[in-house]
Amino acid sequence: MPPLNRVCVLGSGNWGSTAARIVGSNVLKLADFDDRVNIWVYEEMVNGKKLTEIINTQHENVKYLPGHKLPPNVTAVADPKEAVRGATHLVVVIPHQFVQDLLASIHGCVSPSAQAISLIKGIAISSLGMTTMTQIIHRALAIPVASLSGANIADEIAEEKYCETTIGCSDPGEAAVWQSLFNTPYFQVNCVSDVIGVEFCGALKNVVAVGAGFIDGLGLGNNTKAAIIRIGFLEMRRLAMHISGAQIQDATFMESCGMADVITTCYGGRNRRLAEEFVKTGKRMSQLEQEMLNGQKLQGYLTAGEVYSYIDGCGIADHYPLFTNIYQICYQGRHPHTIFDGLNVDFSRDTRTPPLAS
Amino acid sequence: MPPLNRVCVLGSGNWGSTAARIVGSNVLKLADFDDRVNIWVYEEMVNGKKLTEIINTQHENVKYLPGHKLPPNVTAVADPKEAVRGATHLVVVIPHQFVQDLLASIHGCVSPSAQAISLIKGIAISSLGMTTMTQIIHRALAIPVASLSGANIADEIAEEKYCETTIGCSDPGEAAVWQSLFNTPYFQVNCVSDVIGVEFCGALKNVVAVGAGFIDGLGLGNNTKAAIIRIGFLEMRRLAMHISGAQIQDATFMESCGMADVITTCYGGRNRRLAEEFVKTGKRMSQLEQEMLNGQKLQGYLTAGEVYSYIDGCGIADHYPLFTNIYQICYQGRHPHTIFDGLNVDFSRDTRTPPLAS
Repeated sequence: MPPLNRVCVLGSGNWGSTAARIVGSNVLKLADFDDRVNIWVYEEMVNGKKLTEIINTQHENVKYLPGHKLPPNVTAVADPKEAVRGATHLVVVIPHQFVQDLLASIHGCVSPSAQAISLIKGIAISSLGMTTMTQIIHRALAIPVASLSGANIADEIAEEKYCETTIGCSDPGEAAVWQSLFNTPYFQVNCVSDVIGVEFCGALKNVVAVGAGFIDGLGLGNNTKAAIIRIGFLEMRRLAMHISGAQIQDATFMESCGMADVITTCYGGRNRRLAEEFVKTGKRMSQLEQEMLNGQKLQGYLTAGEVYSYIDGCGIADHYPLFTNIYQICYQGRHPHTIFDGLNVDFSRDTRTPPLAS
Repeated sequence: MPPLNRVCVLGSGNWGSTAARIVGSNVLKLADFDDRVNIWVYEEMVNGKKLTEIINTQHENVKYLPGHKLPPNVTAVADPKEAVRGATHLVVVIPHQFVQDLLASIHGCVSPSAQAISLIKGIAISSLGMTTMTQIIHRALAIPVASLSGANIADEIAEEKYCETTIGCSDPGEAAVWQSLFNTPYFQVNCVSDVIGVEFCGALKNVVAVGAGFIDGLGLGNNTKAAIIRIGFLEMRRLAMHISGAQIQDATFMESCGMADVITTCYGGRNRRLAEEFVKTGKRMSQLEQEMLNGQKLQGYLTAGEVYSYIDGCGIADHYPLFTNIYQICYQGRHPHTIFDGLNVDFSRDTRTPPLAS
């Protein structure tokens, strides 16, 4: 008998704990997986006790996912090297700014035959193009990396409210394994082969959500918000095609990671909320991040800046009027009402023609 | 000089009055259009005065669009024959159940060189296929008929909040004329050549909104609603392709009439609201129609029944699990929680392959 597969979840925030809850429960039903699931926990003291100890005794991440029990086969481990030892399936789900340090810390400890999946939303766009999380993880660990993204507000999933997600995995066999680890009756997994399309959606939707928040801040209605969501969605698709044309599949944008996640994020989510406050209060984004996110950076705001640098550098900003307007409102003091300037773009040929020339 | 074109708006409800407000203002800027715009008003007494008189003196439809002035060049006319006399452009915007009577009443009075545009949402689906409003109008008047539909809650447009709409018109020259009549800085018109695709979207989205209302009634969250919107949208597209494959264009579904209108309708709108109450109160739909719509029939509920008859008759109901579940919840007493049954459908090939065989 071959040795059993083993899952390690790297990250124990809200989303990581939710993922561990799902995977920890699913492995018990999979004959070729070890029951034990390690979850790497950044050690901290909570009410005078170590968070790992709390998780391993109370089976609850009382700090980041209070009120929802983890299966007892999920074991918190403070040392990332120890956490990944023997793991065949790594679930990477930490804030993107900590990824490089984590990858450095487990270098040499990951089995060369292991697989990883990234649940991290965030891509780095520069004038050279973009780098996705799966690419960063692949470069560091030299193992295949899949992506998972969808209309997935973590608290709602922890409450087992029905939703869908998308796994991007280029190997159909491996995709089926990831699906078996994540699929539940309330968390429906669709698989596509387009890994970076899934990641693109997860990152770019935050820019659209900033636009949606501006609409809420301006006190406009459902029609207006739907227009912004529609145009934003089509600029997302256009940009993904532009940067990575041949690799991106149209159909990915119709999966949960695309259309559904844009909708969720434009109605819930903190990108929308901060952007609404930005308009209502007139405060600077950095001040709102301090007040509302404990100084954490707002993803959509950062991505809006990166996207604009890229499209401006390529001389194609006029093909992306919404992204351009959002950028200029965020960074250049333009009035939020200018979000509507020049939005009458024809997207109807985007899916039938090759990517736009730069 | 050729005689001037002239617009007649047939219908003076909330949406008709809003349309008359836009068109009445736009004709003043169009050299080849007469300033006068007739609006056919179903005569009724409001506070002891005729509605037509109120409109023609106060320039406001105090009953159906209170608080928003109509341009003084919009003239209310109680006799439909008189209203359409000399009209080259008919804007048809009355509740769909009154269309046949109206068309009969103006038979022979419409210039054979006139054009019409339908702003009516609603199609008739039977085992023979479907009949759209543009087809009904075309059969009755023997003139070309375009369609207009979008994320267009009338009150928000009357308040001049930014939104988009879609005009479906097979003749590019005529499309440009309709666009010039309707486009404003706050009401952005995109044109497509796919007339019935636009109508399909406008009708089928109401079924999805019933599903979205169930989700709200069940107290589920944004993830769940986004999943229902996504699946509903893809079943809409699949059904349109099935019924009218060759005539329908994929891209139409990405216009305001498609994606944006589904979103608006699933967050606002009365289909959503009644469906929410249906779940929360356990009352019958007919009772809710009585209580909440003064006995008017709920469009999404009717269309859900028609859609199911069609797909069941074709033996393809299992390709439309969401539409089927919504039908069974509405008509067969199934619990709203069963809306999630069997939703894991693969839509990824729908746009690349010919329509499904029946």
